[in-house]
Amino acid sequence: MKATRYYGKHDIRTEEIDEPQVSAGYVKVRNEWTGICGTDLHEYDDGPMFCPAPGHSHPLTGVALPIVLGHEIAGVVAEVGEGVTKVKVGDKVSVEPYLVCNECEFCLDGRYNICTKAAFLGLSGESGGFAEYCVAEERFVHPLGDLSTEVGALVEPLAVAHHAIVRSGIKPGQTALVVGAGPIGLFVTAILRAIGVETVYNVEISAIRKAKAEAAGSTLVIDPTAENAVAKIHELTGGRGVDVAFEAVGASPALQTAIDATKTGGNVVNISIWSHNADINLFGLVAREVNLMGTLAYCNDHAPVIKLLQEGKLKNVEQFITGRISAEDVVEKGIDQLINNKEENVKILVHP
Amino acid sequence: MKATRYYGKHDIRTEEIDEPQVSAGYVKVRNEWTGICGTDLHEYDDGPMFCPAPGHSHPLTGVALPIVLGHEIAGVVAEVGEGVTKVKVGDKVSVEPYLVCNECEFCLDGRYNICTKAAFLGLSGESGGFAEYCVAEERFVHPLGDLSTEVGALVEPLAVAHHAIVRSGIKPGQTALVVGAGPIGLFVTAILRAIGVETVYNVEISAIRKAKAEAAGSTLVIDPTAENAVAKIHELTGGRGVDVAFEAVGASPALQTAIDATKTGGNVVNISIWSHNADINLFGLVAREVNLMGTLAYCNDHAPVIKLLQEGKLKNVEQFITGRISAEDVVEKGIDQLINNKEENVKILVHP
Repeated sequence: MKATRYYGKHDIRTEEIDEPQVSAGYVKVRNEWTGICGTDLHEYDDGPMFCPAPGHSHPLTGVALPIVLGHEIAGVVAEVGEGVTKVKVGDKVSVEPYLVCNECEFCLDGRYNICTKAAFLGLSGESGGFAEYCVAEERFVHPLGDLSTEVGALVEPLAVAHHAIVRSGIKPGQTALVVGAGPIGLFVTAILRAIGVETVYNVEISAIRKAKAEAAGSTLVIDPTAENAVAKIHELTGGRGVDVAFEAVGASPALQTAIDATKTGGNVVNISIWSHNADINLFGLVAREVNLMGTLAYCNDHAPVIKLLQEGKLKNVEQFITGRISAEDVVEKGIDQLINNKEENVKILVHP
Repeated sequence: MKATRYYGKHDIRTEEIDEPQVSAGYVKVRNEWTGICGTDLHEYDDGPMFCPAPGHSHPLTGVALPIVLGHEIAGVVAEVGEGVTKVKVGDKVSVEPYLVCNECEFCLDGRYNICTKAAFLGLSGESGGFAEYCVAEERFVHPLGDLSTEVGALVEPLAVAHHAIVRSGIKPGQTALVVGAGPIGLFVTAILRAIGVETVYNVEISAIRKAKAEAAGSTLVIDPTAENAVAKIHELTGGRGVDVAFEAVGASPALQTAIDATKTGGNVVNISIWSHNADINLFGLVAREVNLMGTLAYCNDHAPVIKLLQEGKLKNVEQFITGRISAEDVVEKGIDQLINNKEENVKILVHP
């Protein structure tokens, strides 16, 4: 089959490789659309990071470069292994790209997203999304019903946002702040609105992204270069602060805003991956018993995201698709575009 | 009555003032022993901070300087107001110094320690410990039974440690790391052992404090100037890390050690008050879903601490008393001693 593989920094090649084989309990999916993730950009520009370098095979999968990229996968079931009952050939599905050990204390505790040996299709697995087929464990293949596979390719990044929201403990009717309106900040905003959080403030500098946050359902987008965002949030909340804040930038002023604008006893969820140290005043964390929580990927979040989409509670997600390209063009029309025109783009989908 | 009051930076005076009056639901306590807290040192050396300056009366109590200092109070019930049933005249008691509004969302939620209007006896209340008498609300007066009032004066700082431990969610049989062996680090260590946490690692540089941590029940004290504390913890825990870590220093390397030595999915509790920004790598927080939690004072922690003391589970706490002085000597023999010989001292108790 045709596959687009990552060989190392600035080296991605489209070539013929063998099709992945399905075994008992696994599902073979004919990939239709796979989104490009920020992680893919980091791998291409600075990697290999999550992808195992040659000679450093992944402990769970035994895989090393070259690796088929792409982990925000949707497609159609092409073949099912023995014992598979959840899906049948022809079903449209979203593929949760996890590969886990099923035996560490976190897997046994149901928190497979922090499995100590976790691998990912498209980063450290034997197959991925930028190829004609992938193979995934039955539990990680999620039926889309009538949803399109274009929307299906958004389920993975939406699940990242959903998991951050679950971690936050926010309830319908509470108030939220989302700092940063990149793809994840936008998805968090959209899902918060979908689950009944009616007041979602956003902090964002870029004019293009401000408009996207509004379209995603933001109550108000505050520009921190034009006004003091923390003071504005306190003014809007009667001095109380928001119940929950999400940091989706990876910068110290963004995290400080999130902490300082959160109510006493509230939660701040850090979603972003930081490329440098954070320089933050922790006084509020201690004096107001605020919790700062990390969040990684997703864990049982795909199904509820699909349900929100099917029920129409999570609407207009097609607005987040800003490009549709073929796998051969993933560098020029995908990665380069996302790096150089990052404000205009949210999600570019790749067809193998 | 004789009272030792704080007038402002470097200004503490012992003088005659009126006795506080008891009203319905309140208890008048003849103070026997009151510990000197780090907060008292900060007030004396850099304040007023928590103590309201003249012209800035506390919103709940209406009090401003001069204020009777001392909030780690134990004494004997001298008089009870109408309706008080919890204690009777002659009972030895520990006084929880909170004064709260009982009407904000946090008070109504039972989290009175983060009451938005909270005041403290000895900092922003009408009475305090460095005087012959204080008056407290019935709910905040805790019977000591047969315990001495010397031990009773330790209940307040022990409750700070207990609250941090409750916040951490640690269970008996799990493992803990305590970074810093100042008074609170020592108290956390002692209480962890008392509640059945058998493995408590400590990180501490000072030789004097290392010995104190061992006496408090530390399994092993690691000197981070002699070896890599994070690597050592991982070696000791089979690469897993501790279940919970406590930061009791207020310095970036200490917090980084706490985060990096904590297991995937574990909790880090920041107890210290920071005098500067923290410079920390948050990657572990995100990639391993570690939670960083603030903790403030105590909330329903006095009674369980007293129970641990009465049952003999929390033992040898007298070792933490490193001085007994009279209120007139609080600056020379108390505050100066704690500032200049801080490693030798843990708790100095003041008799009014």
